[in-house]
Amino acid sequence: MKQFKAEIISIGDEVLAGYTVNTNATFISQQLLSIGLPVQWVSTISDRNGEIVQALKTALGRADAILVTGGLGPTPDDLTKKAICDFFKVGMRRDADTLENVLQFLKTRGIKPTDLNQAQALIPDCDMVIPNSVGTAPCLVFERDKHHFFFMPGVPGEMKRMVSDHILDYLKQRLALTPVHTVLLRTTGIPESKLYEKLKPILDDFPEIQTAFLPRYIGVDIRFKLISDDSKKIIRLQELETKIRSKAKKYIVTDKPIELEQVLGELLHKKRLSLSVAESFTGGLIADLITNIPGSSDYFTAGLITYSNDSKMHLLGVSEQTLKQFGAVSRETAQEMVRGVQSRFGTDCAISTTGIAGPGGATATKPVGLCYVAARFKNREIIKEFHFGTERLINKKRGAIAGLELLRRLILEQ
Amino acid sequence: MKQFKAEIISIGDEVLAGYTVNTNATFISQQLLSIGLPVQWVSTISDRNGEIVQALKTALGRADAILVTGGLGPTPDDLTKKAICDFFKVGMRRDADTLENVLQFLKTRGIKPTDLNQAQALIPDCDMVIPNSVGTAPCLVFERDKHHFFFMPGVPGEMKRMVSDHILDYLKQRLALTPVHTVLLRTTGIPESKLYEKLKPILDDFPEIQTAFLPRYIGVDIRFKLISDDSKKIIRLQELETKIRSKAKKYIVTDKPIELEQVLGELLHKKRLSLSVAESFTGGLIADLITNIPGSSDYFTAGLITYSNDSKMHLLGVSEQTLKQFGAVSRETAQEMVRGVQSRFGTDCAISTTGIAGPGGATATKPVGLCYVAARFKNREIIKEFHFGTERLINKKRGAIAGLELLRRLILEQ
Repeated sequence: MKQFKAEIISIGDEVLAGYTVNTNATFISQQLLSIGLPVQWVSTISDRNGEIVQALKTALGRADAILVTGGLGPTPDDLTKKAICDFFKVGMRRDADTLENVLQFLKTRGIKPTDLNQAQALIPDCDMVIPNSVGTAPCLVFERDKHHFFFMPGVPGEMKRMVSDHILDYLKQRLALTPVHTVLLRTTGIPESKLYEKLKPILDDFPEIQTAFLPRYIGVDIRFKLISDDSKKIIRLQELETKIRSKAKKYIVTDKPIELEQVLGELLHKKRLSLSVAESFTGGLIADLITNIPGSSDYFTAGLITYSNDSKMHLLGVSEQTLKQFGAVSRETAQEMVRGVQSRFGTDCAISTTGIAGPGGATATKPVGLCYVAARFKNREIIKEFHFGTERLINKKRGAIAGLELLRRLILEQ
Repeated sequence: MKQFKAEIISIGDEVLAGYTVNTNATFISQQLLSIGLPVQWVSTISDRNGEIVQALKTALGRADAILVTGGLGPTPDDLTKKAICDFFKVGMRRDADTLENVLQFLKTRGIKPTDLNQAQALIPDCDMVIPNSVGTAPCLVFERDKHHFFFMPGVPGEMKRMVSDHILDYLKQRLALTPVHTVLLRTTGIPESKLYEKLKPILDDFPEIQTAFLPRYIGVDIRFKLISDDSKKIIRLQELETKIRSKAKKYIVTDKPIELEQVLGELLHKKRLSLSVAESFTGGLIADLITNIPGSSDYFTAGLITYSNDSKMHLLGVSEQTLKQFGAVSRETAQEMVRGVQSRFGTDCAISTTGIAGPGGATATKPVGLCYVAARFKNREIIKEFHFGTERLINKKRGAIAGLELLRRLILEQ
């Protein structure tokens, strides 16, 4: 079985200048890997004829699929079209479908076409054109000696649609790639080493399945991968998934590439539960994450960010006695905060955080990173103490994730 | 004057797999450009001997400075050291300073050295070693025929220190680079086209100075650049800066690469002013941004996220009459919100937002993206109506920036 290889060529001076991060390459790499076509080279070059031709030559000598982004706009500094003609030794032609697409695109937006737009229909004489469903510049496809070239615009939204809607299927068929089966299990609340220890006995029984543990600040992703069209092996993958799901049930948040705030939002929506939050440590981040999800106004009632002791007392009813005796950063304060916000807004659920996000604010007994997170669902509650690190933004993120996750588990009684 | 060129080689399968975004290359590109040494090529390759040697050969043929990241850890899958030896035809040597640095590093963290750590002191016989001030793997420097090679670990924090503290100065000296003078003026609250129109008459008088307008969601950066050691030209750059500052005073937030929430935070801190916020449209993002700044607890008192009408009435004292007559998304509600939160917490300053963040929630008269933002400083206030787009997260960001910026201008009476 031949292992096919892919190369990405990113054209653009704004990437070379460090003004734009090359996330296009990241997206394409992920997508190609998901169909069993690993990217072996990413080359970023400037928008100059000689550079482009040289990079295409190098790619032709080593890669089966070559995906090029950038340099296909109508402006005069886009020299990619000229370089394509030079490299493939073809001329330019006017493409009727592309012109129609450009005019249609402008029409729906009420924009008058200019000469520059007309120029976009003038394309190198390629083997196939993939239309741009969300913009004007199309994708040009060439095949030479079983090497497949795709020239796409650099606008991420346009490029992504071309890859997802057309190029992946095209390459699967033309290269007759072996199907890739992947399983993603997104966990939170358990360190990578502990998770690995817990699951190792199961994993050892499935050596034929590739396993990866991918740690993020907010949790660990487990990925299983099987490149095969053998149905027995596919059943084995399903067996592995079932066993892991049962063993790590408590920690598995989702099997989709979505974030915890969306998982919790869907749970609240489905169960018709309302939520309020009281934040000190996380400073509004929990509310911000929750309200990033469209439709969150259905379940999110209100949030209180109580940075001062006064606001903790007056808004949440935390007692002066508690603050004096245990301090604002204490299990007791977290508890009174979560109870206070829940009863104030009469919500089914509530979350609270209090702690020392750093870098300043530590005391003799309370170090930076100390944090108490509480969650309440109806009359059940859970409060946990955390010891995060010294980086403020990471601390806020970890505290926010802990709050969302504690509530999720409380609702699911895990 | 020779135009020197740089190349970045990123080694690492996790970048090729699309699991890690190559922000290392972005950082290095920015830094090298700032000393007048543009990056012309970024090559990402896998951690294999043949690939590494081939990439080094290609780079030797075209670049004056070659910065390599990744593959210098102690683990067996880091083949970079072997490839370096092969390419430069040198052997390995035990480096006493590196061993000392590794042992010292582990000691301060209370970690016992392992054989793997000992192996880190075994390095290719390079021309110079730059120690790692925040980790264990050092930077290896080679010079061949006036081409300068730097091999660094891929850990961003370690690589950045090596570049900033050593490599930039090294290259400035060894390549005798012409000094680069840059000015950054970070604006907000004015579209790129209007800003350009306003400043064009001034810019036209300074054709010798490179000007760039760099739009971001939250504002437009103006950058001036002069590559010269001619003191007359440097004075001209200062003249240009003075004229632009005076013409665009209202919109210029800072001349440092910092964000608006930090600028506002410093202003509040300096003037000993307190702040509270009432957020609907922005859902906690304003509070989150403000509390990202260390020390914000000095001036940030509290934030209320009032998603429901009930919470707007009970927490902020917005009148039922106002909500009925004008609706929750209205100038009147924004005004009562900002007054309500200011008086509730007795703060010097206050910000409020209300609107339709989308994608749902539009009514016959109120489209997605409609947003009212209010700011109050003592008894002065300003309320503005915005028409943002349809993307929820971008809308939240724009609304938050508008709130911070309105308050900043109000305090400065601009």
